[in-house]
Amino acid sequence: MIIVPEKEIAGLLGRAEAFEAVENVFAAMASGQAYNFPVIREAIGHADALYGFKSGFDRSSLALGLKSGGYWPGNAEKGLTNHQSTVFLFDADTGRARAVVGGNLLTALRTAAASAVSIKHLARKDAKVLGMIGAGHQSTFQMRAAAEQRDFDKVLGWNFHPEMLSRLEETAGELGLPFESVDLDRMGAEADVIISITSSFDPILMAHQVGPGTHIACMGTDTKGKQEVDVELVAGATLFTDEVAQSATIGECQHAVAKGIVSRDNIIEIGAVINATHPGRTSESEITLFDGTGVGLQDLAVASAAVELAIRKGVAIEVDF
Amino acid sequence: MIIVPEKEIAGLLGRAEAFEAVENVFAAMASGQAYNFPVIREAIGHADALYGFKSGFDRSSLALGLKSGGYWPGNAEKGLTNHQSTVFLFDADTGRARAVVGGNLLTALRTAAASAVSIKHLARKDAKVLGMIGAGHQSTFQMRAAAEQRDFDKVLGWNFHPEMLSRLEETAGELGLPFESVDLDRMGAEADVIISITSSFDPILMAHQVGPGTHIACMGTDTKGKQEVDVELVAGATLFTDEVAQSATIGECQHAVAKGIVSRDNIIEIGAVINATHPGRTSESEITLFDGTGVGLQDLAVASAAVELAIRKGVAIEVDF
Repeated sequence: MIIVPEKEIAGLLGRAEAFEAVENVFAAMASGQAYNFPVIREAIGHADALYGFKSGFDRSSLALGLKSGGYWPGNAEKGLTNHQSTVFLFDADTGRARAVVGGNLLTALRTAAASAVSIKHLARKDAKVLGMIGAGHQSTFQMRAAAEQRDFDKVLGWNFHPEMLSRLEETAGELGLPFESVDLDRMGAEADVIISITSSFDPILMAHQVGPGTHIACMGTDTKGKQEVDVELVAGATLFTDEVAQSATIGECQHAVAKGIVSRDNIIEIGAVINATHPGRTSESEITLFDGTGVGLQDLAVASAAVELAIRKGVAIEVDF
Repeated sequence: MIIVPEKEIAGLLGRAEAFEAVENVFAAMASGQAYNFPVIREAIGHADALYGFKSGFDRSSLALGLKSGGYWPGNAEKGLTNHQSTVFLFDADTGRARAVVGGNLLTALRTAAASAVSIKHLARKDAKVLGMIGAGHQSTFQMRAAAEQRDFDKVLGWNFHPEMLSRLEETAGELGLPFESVDLDRMGAEADVIISITSSFDPILMAHQVGPGTHIACMGTDTKGKQEVDVELVAGATLFTDEVAQSATIGECQHAVAKGIVSRDNIIEIGAVINATHPGRTSESEITLFDGTGVGLQDLAVASAAVELAIRKGVAIEVDF
């Protein structure tokens, strides 16, 4: 069995590898080669923790296993990350445990890769202005990955707590991009691509604020009840997602589906665009919306890549198991 | 993170430790301190494999995690066990991965411990004759664990393939007990305790064959459609199980429940007997039936014990994760 500790991940896997892994597995999902198993998520009644599993199998890569862990709100005061995850990979030919991989940085990378994949395939080619809603830890990952997909010349930022916007400004600076803190009216009117990465339970961005031709990647909604954008914005956009079942139940589309404004049939798997079985964006004025809910197969894909790289670079710990 | 390889388990955990761990966790389940999460079980469409997870959390011991693995029918010809499992334990205070433990022998030990716990708490004190239905790999574990619970003076055996009965005879011989191969009429009439451990999809033991006062532990039925005993036998017995939800849906009681002969309210958690909140057997003539479906908490309990013992005995592999 191979162990790839959390501390090794940063030296192994970059944005390019994560992007490739996530793009490939979205394609495999849409072609029926890969599927996610039901998600387990439990409030365990100890340490206020949410614990669970995301899991699946990709027949094309033979990635099999799960990501396990969750949210421990008391970790920060212990000097630990509140979100903790570990990926366990199995040998699809024998069922034996194959690898244990630290999953914290991988989760950040695969989530950033998902919105970047959506930008590659759905944003206008001439997109120049990147809008960021949310300035938490994950926002910098999303921005860096996005910046590689289009020739952006500016970043606009909005956050519920404006004092945190310095994080976005710093990251934009590192990317050589000017940054401006704006209200949501300006964000919607000026940004060509908007990424929302918040833990909001109320809509932030409204339909009337968003100009034609915008691509929006909603990356924060992964639970029943969460919401980042107005249902009217969802209703008026061409909708894409990683997995339709999750999009309609725990993703950004859940509210529009629950209200009957959008049906599951209106939501397109991004993998279909990657596979060119769906055209994706078909006009310069269309609003495209990617509902990134986060699936176990993404975790397995990046963890598999990390294992291969760890073996190649000689940092995989091998245990006779 | 601690690794306890499969090959170390035999030197760490015996029947006594497995019995104690399983008895304690059944008690914790009945007192509401421990619960199992939903089971994931998927035919993955590769290597004819069934893959999945059994998981849960025990607040009394803080055991948190899952057993993952499954059934790979092609393993035997590769020199591997067809059933493969690995247990992953998490730190309930932080959500960090705590241990990876080989789960194959542990599964055999915890399954044997479950029927032994049922015999301790439900069989007549003067039980003398042990009946074994099934002679596969697991049968020897069940027999050895059972033999420690009553002063048996004989073992009776029946198997669908009689040529396999030599396995039971050998094990009985090692326990110093005479063995007799019998038909099911004699089995039911003479045995005081009967353990069935088969993968049958049709009833083997019928109600009219079983004498009063018998304790039956049905250990083979863990999937929709499987069945070891007649529904009339289930209907006439006082029913106990590890977990009512599983008993009624994938355990031996599923058929009687589906037919409306037995309701979930008629099935008693064995933990209630352990905790003395239910009297268990109340007469010498009563037939008691334990439906052992196998729960994730059993796996976590024995794996936790293995980790403690591995640390104490200096065989735990510690990895800086």
